[in-house]
Amino acid sequence: MPTAKLKPALDHISKNKDRFLQDFRTLLKQPSVSAQKLGIEDCAKIVKKQMDIAGLKAKILPVKNGNPVVYGEARSKSSSKTLLIYGHYDVQPVEPLEKWVSGPFDAKLSGRKIVSRGAADSKNNVISFIKAAESYLKSSGDVPLNLKFVVEGEEEIGSPHLSSFIDENAEKLKADSVVCYDGDMAEEGRPKFELGVKGLLYVELRCKKAKEDLHSSYAPLAENPAWRLVWAMNTIKGPDEKILIKGWYDDVVPFTPVQSRLMNKIQFDGNGLLREWGLKSFPRAKNNREAFKHYMTEPTCTICGFKTGYIGEGSKTVLPGSAMLKIDFRIVNDQNPRRLLQLLKEHLHNHGFDDIQVKALGLVEPSTTKPSAPIARAAEKAGRIVYGRAPVVMPRNPASGPDYLFTKHLGLDSIWTGSGPPSAYSHAHAPNEWTTIDNFVNGIRYIATIMDCYATTN
Amino acid sequence: MPTAKLKPALDHISKNKDRFLQDFRTLLKQPSVSAQKLGIEDCAKIVKKQMDIAGLKAKILPVKNGNPVVYGEARSKSSSKTLLIYGHYDVQPVEPLEKWVSGPFDAKLSGRKIVSRGAADSKNNVISFIKAAESYLKSSGDVPLNLKFVVEGEEEIGSPHLSSFIDENAEKLKADSVVCYDGDMAEEGRPKFELGVKGLLYVELRCKKAKEDLHSSYAPLAENPAWRLVWAMNTIKGPDEKILIKGWYDDVVPFTPVQSRLMNKIQFDGNGLLREWGLKSFPRAKNNREAFKHYMTEPTCTICGFKTGYIGEGSKTVLPGSAMLKIDFRIVNDQNPRRLLQLLKEHLHNHGFDDIQVKALGLVEPSTTKPSAPIARAAEKAGRIVYGRAPVVMPRNPASGPDYLFTKHLGLDSIWTGSGPPSAYSHAHAPNEWTTIDNFVNGIRYIATIMDCYATTN
Repeated sequence: MPTAKLKPALDHISKNKDRFLQDFRTLLKQPSVSAQKLGIEDCAKIVKKQMDIAGLKAKILPVKNGNPVVYGEARSKSSSKTLLIYGHYDVQPVEPLEKWVSGPFDAKLSGRKIVSRGAADSKNNVISFIKAAESYLKSSGDVPLNLKFVVEGEEEIGSPHLSSFIDENAEKLKADSVVCYDGDMAEEGRPKFELGVKGLLYVELRCKKAKEDLHSSYAPLAENPAWRLVWAMNTIKGPDEKILIKGWYDDVVPFTPVQSRLMNKIQFDGNGLLREWGLKSFPRAKNNREAFKHYMTEPTCTICGFKTGYIGEGSKTVLPGSAMLKIDFRIVNDQNPRRLLQLLKEHLHNHGFDDIQVKALGLVEPSTTKPSAPIARAAEKAGRIVYGRAPVVMPRNPASGPDYLFTKHLGLDSIWTGSGPPSAYSHAHAPNEWTTIDNFVNGIRYIATIMDCYATTN
Repeated sequence: MPTAKLKPALDHISKNKDRFLQDFRTLLKQPSVSAQKLGIEDCAKIVKKQMDIAGLKAKILPVKNGNPVVYGEARSKSSSKTLLIYGHYDVQPVEPLEKWVSGPFDAKLSGRKIVSRGAADSKNNVISFIKAAESYLKSSGDVPLNLKFVVEGEEEIGSPHLSSFIDENAEKLKADSVVCYDGDMAEEGRPKFELGVKGLLYVELRCKKAKEDLHSSYAPLAENPAWRLVWAMNTIKGPDEKILIKGWYDDVVPFTPVQSRLMNKIQFDGNGLLREWGLKSFPRAKNNREAFKHYMTEPTCTICGFKTGYIGEGSKTVLPGSAMLKIDFRIVNDQNPRRLLQLLKEHLHNHGFDDIQVKALGLVEPSTTKPSAPIARAAEKAGRIVYGRAPVVMPRNPASGPDYLFTKHLGLDSIWTGSGPPSAYSHAHAPNEWTTIDNFVNGIRYIATIMDCYATTN
């Protein structure tokens, strides 16, 4: 049952939605490209000002060598429960500029659509949870539970300082659960939330032999670093996609029956994806459902890039002096990227590849939250109330994010959700990113309702 | 015994060496990168102009779908013998540009050194045989024997049209022997010539999957073209360097006792090479002599280039849509590149790699000439006269060239020789290619003397 505060808050949202849209567009118009250090400080100030307007106690917290975090909180007079909400105010670069139909920071309205960098990833979500808090405070002078907002400015560059920020502020961030309001919706306007993510180990392998590229006639006299990488890679994964590094799968925990059931309930438009990608079928799968299971559950090893020797037009007979390879490993619970990095290094050593240097460029732990967690049940209820239908519940997002910082470092149950169109369609990270006014307004209602439902869910 | 024409010609060279150097640098300053179709026509014109200045009858002969051949000839009043001389005016690409200490087409003089793309491979040689002819014609109004010069513009991309050119012009190119003046010298200023070359099969492998790069979280759903190439390559050669394609070695003919004896007489400064390359030891060899034998006799398979996905700084989690690989196979008598190409394609098919496209970018047959051939004996004499010491005679050049067109299509004895520093040191095909003024001037004397000695050798 919702508390008595929910209805006045939802009414407040309906009455103020034009102003909220205006504030959303003000936030969109402020560039905040973390990869290019563009407009970051100014954007943090706008987020803080919005928190001030909402009646939150807000602060811009400096981050050593990084972009500031905007922190806001509201104390509840009626509940001792605390909900942490995570978001980010930074956005992806806008290039290629020439592909935008309107300026990437124009926040242009055309009909019900808002086209702008950050429209779906994720300024829509940030402004929504601030406006949700405002709606409670302005309508009933209270929030249904204690709220703590962490809005970082480095998500789009891999959150390099979020880990230390969270550890240093663990006391301040104490809460009962977290909503990472940085997700999207499912197809056909269905809400969606995820209960964890795959982790990531991203490495660069380098092999260097001769000081520079040699004439290829010397092949019998000088080792070829490209061949070394090819042979090394071949000991890492074969055509059956099984990773051959000893112990790699030791810590893999299969989905529980409940997680499997959730996975099997998810609709998967496999044929749509194949069409979009120009492919005929999924590898190793008897059908789309099996492919989806691979997608959700498998640790992966992907060659992301390989560069060596002459890569221009035509032929050049060179024996490369060096070669470079980038790999990402997506990992699942309870695999640990630090341990796997160690296994990878030992594997290369044991297979005679001491001439290959391994540089770790990214380590993200996998994470998981139980479907029975109160925050999951609250989001489920909120989805039915706001959208009139049960949310799609993904037991895991096959991509990666810093969820483990909340689940492992702070020990919280966590869901990832959001209000924009599905990321496969919203052009997130691409030109002409968009959301709609309806997505936006319902997103405020949704997070407001999650707050209320969580306050009353045990 | 030299003819009476040799001394005046050598004197002419000494008197005109500054002008010859100037003309050499003019030729160097003209880019002529066949792989990139850069400056080819303009370079052909400069070569023709040099032939005109020398007093040769010269012509630029168009080549259908290819780069023109510059052809020149001089008739002898005193001999009915004909020596064909082959060279090439095209050069290798200059990338990576940032590694050059001066512009690759600046033909920069520093001290006695000339740094430039083409300085050693092989504009030095081309300008030398033209200047040698000029020196005869200007000093005694005659050449010691008929001369025919063929200077092609596609050697560095595997001479794709030289075969049809030679076949179509077989009558015009009739001669008694050929000097392919595209070689280098041995260590310590010793002249060197080769009696044949390894052949070459150069292929590009491409694999294409999704229309564009995908987010790497989709790894279980879309085949990775880079992995496909890695796995395919691994079926082609293992770390023991044995090529695993069925039938690959079937036609390999071992060296004759005479060839082996020549090979064993060759000094091999293995430690010098290792120092130059910054390497510690030769692979798979108990000692330098064994490494040298590998170098001279082994068919090879070299990854020359590999490009896929994201190859910039840092991490980008992409699943590449396509991947490209360049390989050269060096081959020996009597392997045939056409047959081997077929074997390679069958191999890929038989190993399930029908998704890999094979594009042949170069096919060069191996070749051989007997050590007792008159042109070999003439070069031996000329080496002693010009450099004061017997040339190093290599039964085979471990690099490749279109020698087979002369030996097999025209039925000529052939030697490969040249005037630049050893290619291991001259940075041929690499940044900062160089020769010296002394190498250059002696190279003119050397080819002039070969002409004279061959005129009197039976």
